[in-house]
Amino acid sequence: MNAPKPQHPNSDVRMRGFMQRATVEQASTWIDAALPDFRLLPSETVSLFAAMGRVLAADVTSQVNVPGFARSMMDGFAVRSEQTYGATSYNPLPLKILGTCLPGKPFAGSVETGQAVRIMTGAPLPDGADAVIPVEHTEINGDSVLVLGEVSAGKHIGQVGEDIRAGEQIQPARRILRPQDLGVLSSIGVAEVTVIRRPRVRIVITGNELLPAGTPPSACRIPDANGPMLQGLVLRDGGLPLVREIVPDNPEALRAALHDDADVILVSGGSSVGQEDHVPRLLAEEGELGIHGIAMRPSSPAGMGRLNGRLVFLLPGNPVSCLCAYDFFAGRAIRALGGQSPDWPHRRVRMVLSRKLVSTVGRVDYARVQVRGTEAEPLAVSGASVLSSTTRADGFVIVPADSEGYPPGTEIEVLLY
Amino acid sequence: MNAPKPQHPNSDVRMRGFMQRATVEQASTWIDAALPDFRLLPSETVSLFAAMGRVLAADVTSQVNVPGFARSMMDGFAVRSEQTYGATSYNPLPLKILGTCLPGKPFAGSVETGQAVRIMTGAPLPDGADAVIPVEHTEINGDSVLVLGEVSAGKHIGQVGEDIRAGEQIQPARRILRPQDLGVLSSIGVAEVTVIRRPRVRIVITGNELLPAGTPPSACRIPDANGPMLQGLVLRDGGLPLVREIVPDNPEALRAALHDDADVILVSGGSSVGQEDHVPRLLAEEGELGIHGIAMRPSSPAGMGRLNGRLVFLLPGNPVSCLCAYDFFAGRAIRALGGQSPDWPHRRVRMVLSRKLVSTVGRVDYARVQVRGTEAEPLAVSGASVLSSTTRADGFVIVPADSEGYPPGTEIEVLLY
Repeated sequence: MNAPKPQHPNSDVRMRGFMQRATVEQASTWIDAALPDFRLLPSETVSLFAAMGRVLAADVTSQVNVPGFARSMMDGFAVRSEQTYGATSYNPLPLKILGTCLPGKPFAGSVETGQAVRIMTGAPLPDGADAVIPVEHTEINGDSVLVLGEVSAGKHIGQVGEDIRAGEQIQPARRILRPQDLGVLSSIGVAEVTVIRRPRVRIVITGNELLPAGTPPSACRIPDANGPMLQGLVLRDGGLPLVREIVPDNPEALRAALHDDADVILVSGGSSVGQEDHVPRLLAEEGELGIHGIAMRPSSPAGMGRLNGRLVFLLPGNPVSCLCAYDFFAGRAIRALGGQSPDWPHRRVRMVLSRKLVSTVGRVDYARVQVRGTEAEPLAVSGASVLSSTTRADGFVIVPADSEGYPPGTEIEVLLY
Repeated sequence: MNAPKPQHPNSDVRMRGFMQRATVEQASTWIDAALPDFRLLPSETVSLFAAMGRVLAADVTSQVNVPGFARSMMDGFAVRSEQTYGATSYNPLPLKILGTCLPGKPFAGSVETGQAVRIMTGAPLPDGADAVIPVEHTEINGDSVLVLGEVSAGKHIGQVGEDIRAGEQIQPARRILRPQDLGVLSSIGVAEVTVIRRPRVRIVITGNELLPAGTPPSACRIPDANGPMLQGLVLRDGGLPLVREIVPDNPEALRAALHDDADVILVSGGSSVGQEDHVPRLLAEEGELGIHGIAMRPSSPAGMGRLNGRLVFLLPGNPVSCLCAYDFFAGRAIRALGGQSPDWPHRRVRMVLSRKLVSTVGRVDYARVQVRGTEAEPLAVSGASVLSSTTRADGFVIVPADSEGYPPGTEIEVLLY
């Protein structure tokens, strides 16, 4: 079905209508209680170059010191510090230059009394030396360097383990890996990281009126909009979307789809209480229908349950309702299973309402708004202006169940798409 | 080289030091002027299921009306509206039920005087009918429906083109496609979208002290941290990173790498003025070295230029400097080439400094901070605490060149990683 059906034109079926709706809070609580302990969701190992944005499965502890060798922090000369004592620009002290020490190309010999080795930033300190005198405190005189100032032992040297010590925890489990985190992991010699497996999310699209996504609409059939949308939402939330062909709106095909191999199953369509809405009954027969019917708008015919240890979400076929039910419930579960925060992933901004926002006490409203400067303008959602409201909106406002809405000028929180 | 080298211990080479540094603003202006008109960057066609987050290359105009047929907005009965005139619960008017009209399954016949067709939300309106009477205003009596109220013509019907009209522009060029945008594209029969090609970014890593990313560090050589980091940054900015093996730090190999096929070339290492820093000279010889040396910290040895119509960025080998130079300059170009806003992609929040943040007049500072509640704590970046500062930081503050820094308690803007 392509839209919520609050009641059905058959009095027999009407008896099956939502006698009582769960609150949004009850539905969220049900999800949190039903979520398996995701430490049990297997982790997997991926290359550092495939780890961007993934979630660490375990703490990472460095096996090595960084730096792993004493290195110069300046361009200059590696010296024995006591050889510089008393040096000033009026009393330059000469040291014989033995050679050069470059990053990755250490000096083979040892620095002894009266000697120095030219050294560059990042190069390993040669044996015998205990300090670096920066180039700007020296002058060159033939094959000698004239030291124009004193340095103390350890000066301008990066010591072993100064940045990271062997045994130190450098990144905690659950960190979402950022570009610089990959750099740090590489620095300690980590080529592969153990990350939480992306939840595999089977997207089941059903509805006899539907054509495959992207097909030109025909006389009385419409292309599936929810498959591509849900695929994008699952990607946003770190899941691995599994999309297949449209499932025929019959109990046998839907029953089979509910048993597909996945961590989460999303069913779009057939979620309500009409005679063609098989999915709630099938889920109750095969597993558990935990919540069905929620006091919210849109998405009141949404539901959720579980089957064989996987979570199943029943999403209304109407695209706006589908988006809303996904964002309130399914996304929460997918993010949590993947080790991310279950909270809304949207950026929140405080804005001022440009017009009145009307809501009904007793249900949560998901009100799309357009952003105009610092003002949020509620979109008129008369009739089934489904498509236009989802493309034109910049974000949404969640109006709690105990609110009648807000007058113009109210400061509200907008969640940006 | 693995760190900025402000001067070189060879007086001959020292003469080649940065005599004058460009300002950050001059460097940004150079990029904006050098950016080829990216309408010339070829677009490409991708499947709707691969289009999440891509940038539309052209306006999308609907070829079809949505809905494409008059459809019911309610569950109820399709009727001729004049047949309901005078109907009330005290004066129920009977209409014979001819059949049922479901979404995707239209009723074949026509509704005539005295007749009705059971209809569900989303189903096409049968011929002859001009309104839908909702189920809650009816009762069933055998094979007839008793109409308990009036409906006017057009009531509860979604008209052709009510959501989207054929010929209407529904999404503008440069839109970054969101999940619901994919749904809307699908609804109008679009199976493939024309998007701006992702900029191909060749990441050239050079430095004789470097081991391949993720290799355990050896006695005096360190694993490359910048390759994985830059790859993540390029992905974040919508580019397609091309990473290959480390390029030997010699002019022949680097010259060849500068000619690699790509839209943007990033060179990490060898960017300064030392004798081993070949890249600025090679770029000047082969193309144009537009900017070299920038009044900022870190990243002062960064540079940029062009060669054969592609942009080349010279990034210091020090990982923090590399990150900073990428974010200030290379990222800006990559985002713009891909059709995105060139501005910083980071989320900005206003916070209060918990400690003094010191800066030097005459250069822009990129100061990493940790976020603690509503306070931003500047990270101590003594010595080369390179790795620790990039992992520990939550974001950064840009201190302009004319500022000496800020006292504790100052409200500043933090850009979050």
